[in-house]
Amino acid sequence: MISFESDYIAGAHPEVLKRLVETNLESLSGYGSDKYTESAKERIKRAVGIEEAQVEFIAGGTQTNAVVISTMLKDWEGVIAAETGHISVHEAGAIEYTGHEVLMLPQTEGKIEAKALRGYCKAFYADDSHEHMTFPGMVYISYPTEYGTLYSKKELTEIYDICREYGMTLFIDGARLGYGLMSPAADLSLHELASICDVFYIGGTKVGALCGEAVVFTKGNRPAHFLTSVKKRGALLAKGRLVGVQFDALFTDDLYFRIGKYGNDMAERVKAMCAAKGLRMLMDSPTNQQFPIFENGQLEKLKEKIAFTVWQKVDDTHTAVRFATSWSTTEDDLQALENALREV
Amino acid sequence: MISFESDYIAGAHPEVLKRLVETNLESLSGYGSDKYTESAKERIKRAVGIEEAQVEFIAGGTQTNAVVISTMLKDWEGVIAAETGHISVHEAGAIEYTGHEVLMLPQTEGKIEAKALRGYCKAFYADDSHEHMTFPGMVYISYPTEYGTLYSKKELTEIYDICREYGMTLFIDGARLGYGLMSPAADLSLHELASICDVFYIGGTKVGALCGEAVVFTKGNRPAHFLTSVKKRGALLAKGRLVGVQFDALFTDDLYFRIGKYGNDMAERVKAMCAAKGLRMLMDSPTNQQFPIFENGQLEKLKEKIAFTVWQKVDDTHTAVRFATSWSTTEDDLQALENALREV
Amino acid sequence: MISFESDYIAGAHPEVLKRLVETNLESLSGYGSDKYTESAKERIKRAVGIEEAQVEFIAGGTQTNAVVISTMLKDWEGVIAAETGHISVHEAGAIEYTGHEVLMLPQTEGKIEAKALRGYCKAFYADDSHEHMTFPGMVYISYPTEYGTLYSKKELTEIYDICREYGMTLFIDGARLGYGLMSPAADLSLHELASICDVFYIGGTKVGALCGEAVVFTKGNRPAHFLTSVKKRGALLAKGRLVGVQFDALFTDDLYFRIGKYGNDMAERVKAMCAAKGLRMLMDSPTNQQFPIFENGQLEKLKEKIAFTVWQKVDDTHTAVRFATSWSTTEDDLQALENALREV
Amino acid sequence: MISFESDYIAGAHPEVLKRLVETNLESLSGYGSDKYTESAKERIKRAVGIEEAQVEFIAGGTQTNAVVISTMLKDWEGVIAAETGHISVHEAGAIEYTGHEVLMLPQTEGKIEAKALRGYCKAFYADDSHEHMTFPGMVYISYPTEYGTLYSKKELTEIYDICREYGMTLFIDGARLGYGLMSPAADLSLHELASICDVFYIGGTKVGALCGEAVVFTKGNRPAHFLTSVKKRGALLAKGRLVGVQFDALFTDDLYFRIGKYGNDMAERVKAMCAAKGLRMLMDSPTNQQFPIFENGQLEKLKEKIAFTVWQKVDDTHTAVRFATSWSTTEDDLQALENALREV
Repeated sequence: MISFESDYIAGAHPEVLKRLVETNLESLSGYGSDKYTESAKERIKRAVGIEEAQVEFIAGGTQTNAVVISTMLKDWEGVIAAETGHISVHEAGAIEYTGHEVLMLPQTEGKIEAKALRGYCKAFYADDSHEHMTFPGMVYISYPTEYGTLYSKKELTEIYDICREYGMTLFIDGARLGYGLMSPAADLSLHELASICDVFYIGGTKVGALCGEAVVFTKGNRPAHFLTSVKKRGALLAKGRLVGVQFDALFTDDLYFRIGKYGNDMAERVKAMCAAKGLRMLMDSPTNQQFPIFENGQLEKLKEKIAFTVWQKVDDTHTAVRFATSWSTTEDDLQALENALREV
Repeated sequence: MISFESDYIAGAHPEVLKRLVETNLESLSGYGSDKYTESAKERIKRAVGIEEAQVEFIAGGTQTNAVVISTMLKDWEGVIAAETGHISVHEAGAIEYTGHEVLMLPQTEGKIEAKALRGYCKAFYADDSHEHMTFPGMVYISYPTEYGTLYSKKELTEIYDICREYGMTLFIDGARLGYGLMSPAADLSLHELASICDVFYIGGTKVGALCGEAVVFTKGNRPAHFLTSVKKRGALLAKGRLVGVQFDALFTDDLYFRIGKYGNDMAERVKAMCAAKGLRMLMDSPTNQQFPIFENGQLEKLKEKIAFTVWQKVDDTHTAVRFATSWSTTEDDLQALENALREV
Repeated sequence: MISFESDYIAGAHPEVLKRLVETNLESLSGYGSDKYTESAKERIKRAVGIEEAQVEFIAGGTQTNAVVISTMLKDWEGVIAAETGHISVHEAGAIEYTGHEVLMLPQTEGKIEAKALRGYCKAFYADDSHEHMTFPGMVYISYPTEYGTLYSKKELTEIYDICREYGMTLFIDGARLGYGLMSPAADLSLHELASICDVFYIGGTKVGALCGEAVVFTKGNRPAHFLTSVKKRGALLAKGRLVGVQFDALFTDDLYFRIGKYGNDMAERVKAMCAAKGLRMLMDSPTNQQFPIFENGQLEKLKEKIAFTVWQKVDDTHTAVRFATSWSTTEDDLQALENALREV
Repeated sequence: MISFESDYIAGAHPEVLKRLVETNLESLSGYGSDKYTESAKERIKRAVGIEEAQVEFIAGGTQTNAVVISTMLKDWEGVIAAETGHISVHEAGAIEYTGHEVLMLPQTEGKIEAKALRGYCKAFYADDSHEHMTFPGMVYISYPTEYGTLYSKKELTEIYDICREYGMTLFIDGARLGYGLMSPAADLSLHELASICDVFYIGGTKVGALCGEAVVFTKGNRPAHFLTSVKKRGALLAKGRLVGVQFDALFTDDLYFRIGKYGNDMAERVKAMCAAKGLRMLMDSPTNQQFPIFENGQLEKLKEKIAFTVWQKVDDTHTAVRFATSWSTTEDDLQALENALREV
């Protein structure tokens, strides 16, 4: 069936797969000590444009969040996240499993507001009994967010200023970073984003790879003995090449950014179809996830033709769904969606 | 350089890679709910020959050990392992990270002896203060062991009998299972091995896959809500197909076993070369890892030609090394090794 | 200085202390295996009036919460609590330290509402991706709450019904249980409260003891090998007698309930003084904690005479404080408070 | 029954209890912020004689070990201990529960030998794959050991030198410190012991208190936000006075040392009785625990008169037991033991 279910419904982007095939028989040492992993790290550092940046690869997103958060937080600290953040809801308690609390803030369109963040920190330190509470040690945001929305450079800078004021690390989950940075609505380059945080990751799984995320520590601040901590969390791949080769390909000839742009372009066309159909959108998303609202009756029919994700109930008779696009979305997919929309 | 460093120096076996390429553009749902993962599970169940067996895939070995052990142990229990077991030494404390103790037993050629195991259990329950100690709740063994050795059917049965007597789960780490089962020294079939334990895993990473291990719960005893527990540990791949497709290939036309046999055959030839050279072996391994002992001077020279793993110091002037073979070992590799041995 | 700072400002109630002194030189075996601990358990069982109830002692409240919650939750589960609950805010992440998430619900006067709870559970199981989320496995409430308020029998019953419908354990934190049960506003006996939950604890620290809480598993549902799990969490006192003797005294001649009544009576008089002074109360608390609202200027003066706890900012010029009473509150304390109130 | 079962069979030393009674009704603030806790810290600092020493109180021994070890270790580190150490055997996996491995070394009379320790560290860092293993980050020893034996100043200094060479913290478990320091066999003062380690604790529970241990960070190296980390582990007593007052008493007029000496003197007389009876000792202990070896038949008879702890099987017909003395051992107890020994 034609699927807009997620941005991880296909395998690897053909250019990525090609590199896996080409290098398949080479003898390479394990655990990320191979030359392709080295090369991928160099390419990413160059793309990021920060000399002291350090790059490390991890297989999946939840794992990356758990590893980064638990190795960077101090014992007495927790991580602030939007109540709709991935670590707050959809990681089955993976952060708490590492012994750290997720401190949830209200969100607007999936984003934390600087004002709410400052209010939280101020109130925390003003509280006489705050030594009995989890200290806010990190702020976790996603770019783009779960709702496809983007922080502006100004918003990000305000948040980072608060982080520095209160001694908190700023961590950006970039599971869909390529779609975020290449959005027409983005006012940030990769270099700028990297400069306005302490650590972020460049998502591979949802942007062309079979698996793999590239964590970038932007201030030479990679935790000591990081490899051992990664191993301790069961997150060290024996064949580190699997992720290294893929990121080497993704950062060759701007493939990562081309994928981002392509996915966004497809999403814009989905958005236009929805507008043409007269559908309201749950949110105005400028990236590869679109959230049209359907009457429940329509959905039942749509389901027969198209795979998608049910997002949230809007009212008793309406439901928002998610259509996700990616490098693997084809003209045929769009045509099928258009036909299906016409018929519901 | 020619490498006998490990059995994970190459990518995927060509037949495995072919399937990844063929299925790459198909739209499949995530998290292991795709048809290839389903098919792979069925093929494995058939190969194992146990109706109520349940199969689950996890990306890597340490992760598999941590997930299986921590979801099957009770709060008050720890896992017994040989002091040379992988979880005892080379997983950076990954089991302890889940809050459980590894209870170490002495080993003989990498194996736990039934007598020592029984002695441990007897002494534990005879101790008046055992309620203040970690209860032995599981026995972890590897087949083959870290030293390439194998438990006989009799040895395994004795261990399993003790496990059942003392209410312990028997877990077999099969990271190199293919090489074990296909060894001429093995007196066990896959079905028999599966019948003489509660849970085991079929290693993919070291037997032809890019990544991935197949956990088999042999008694319908998969922990409840296993997917959620896997997710909580950061071990759930979004593109579950990556492992599913590979195992589907590995269990098509007996590929998994052909790889095991091939790796062993190559190892036998390595062993013969060592014998011809007059080298002593640290241990008589009947599987794909061989442990010849060299004079330290020889090693320095050998290093220039061949990559291998330094295993352990034998005495002040001698060191044991490991030569590992696999599906990727070639005639050229063997020839190069033979030449190199001649020259040292 | 005269103090209404908390209900743990004094040592032990004189009748409790007397028993500690009387039994001090007796030779007793350790870890709660002594006769006084046995006797205390029996007395509590009798007071609770449930044959299959099991009683265990732990030194402190946060520890009790962490032990009970982490031994009763399944791996994939978290605990639901009011966003103002003690485990949500003032335990420094102690529940998360055990690897479990606290799932927060909005509160009204410190209480969870049955409607909100049912809504949460319904939405959880209706969510297609709930297997990627923490399952609600327990509901944690306090009786009385952090704000001194009480659940009615009807409210509690509704909550318990939902718990049973959704397979969740109901755990009642009774750190101040004595004050709750003896409140004129309470419509529940100890036996009834015990019958409408799966596990609760009878707070000692705030109700006359130097330390110690009595956990009651009301359905014969004490986790297996509980002593070992307690030990593993560092929560097993060598001299278990310390808590055993104290609870034996507290449950002799209704001392526990007498303390509760006395503390409440003192609180009623504090409330009357506040009313006479024309102070608004943050909440209408029927137990031993009272929350009058002062102008900030008044507070500065009050501070010179009386110790209390600053509770929360009400608006820019007003602040709510907490006056706590207990068995140790004296007539002189009340007189001093009355004088101080007159002067501010 | 007359009991030599342990050194925690009685309540508090009368001088300690007296102080609890005298201060019982005073209003004191919670969580260790009271004046008696302050005073106790000052007295201990003075006794230790190190200006930058920092003192913190925790309720019990296992808890103290878990808190100190888990707050001082880095993520990638484990703690080295003798295979007979308390944390290795009798804490039900409490250290592993914090996510850290206990790295066990062979022991001689309960002690780690410097040579073995150095060998371990050397081998660890010489191992090419040590980044895949738990780093040794701390050495844990007991003074006296589980067997009542003592490290000499020279032995301790050698161990500490190795610790500094390899960047490891030296932590001394002083659950029975008073008996150790006051032994005629001790060649160390409290000040010297404190100077030859990074952190140690002064045991209260087994040396006169109802509960409580005093942790001393000797180098101004108390972990940041220690109170919060203690709270997070459920180890913060609301009525901190309970431990503060007791240690204030223990360090008044040398009570702690008088108790140590008295317990040892009683043990010497027990030892003499055993010698007179012709019993072999499992070990030559110079402190308050004695380990005579009995024929199994004798034990059955002895059990009827005297309570003691069965320690370990020596051979098929002999068993070592433990007789522990303390401040609570009386002349009558000794007489009863002598009579009982005569009759078996």
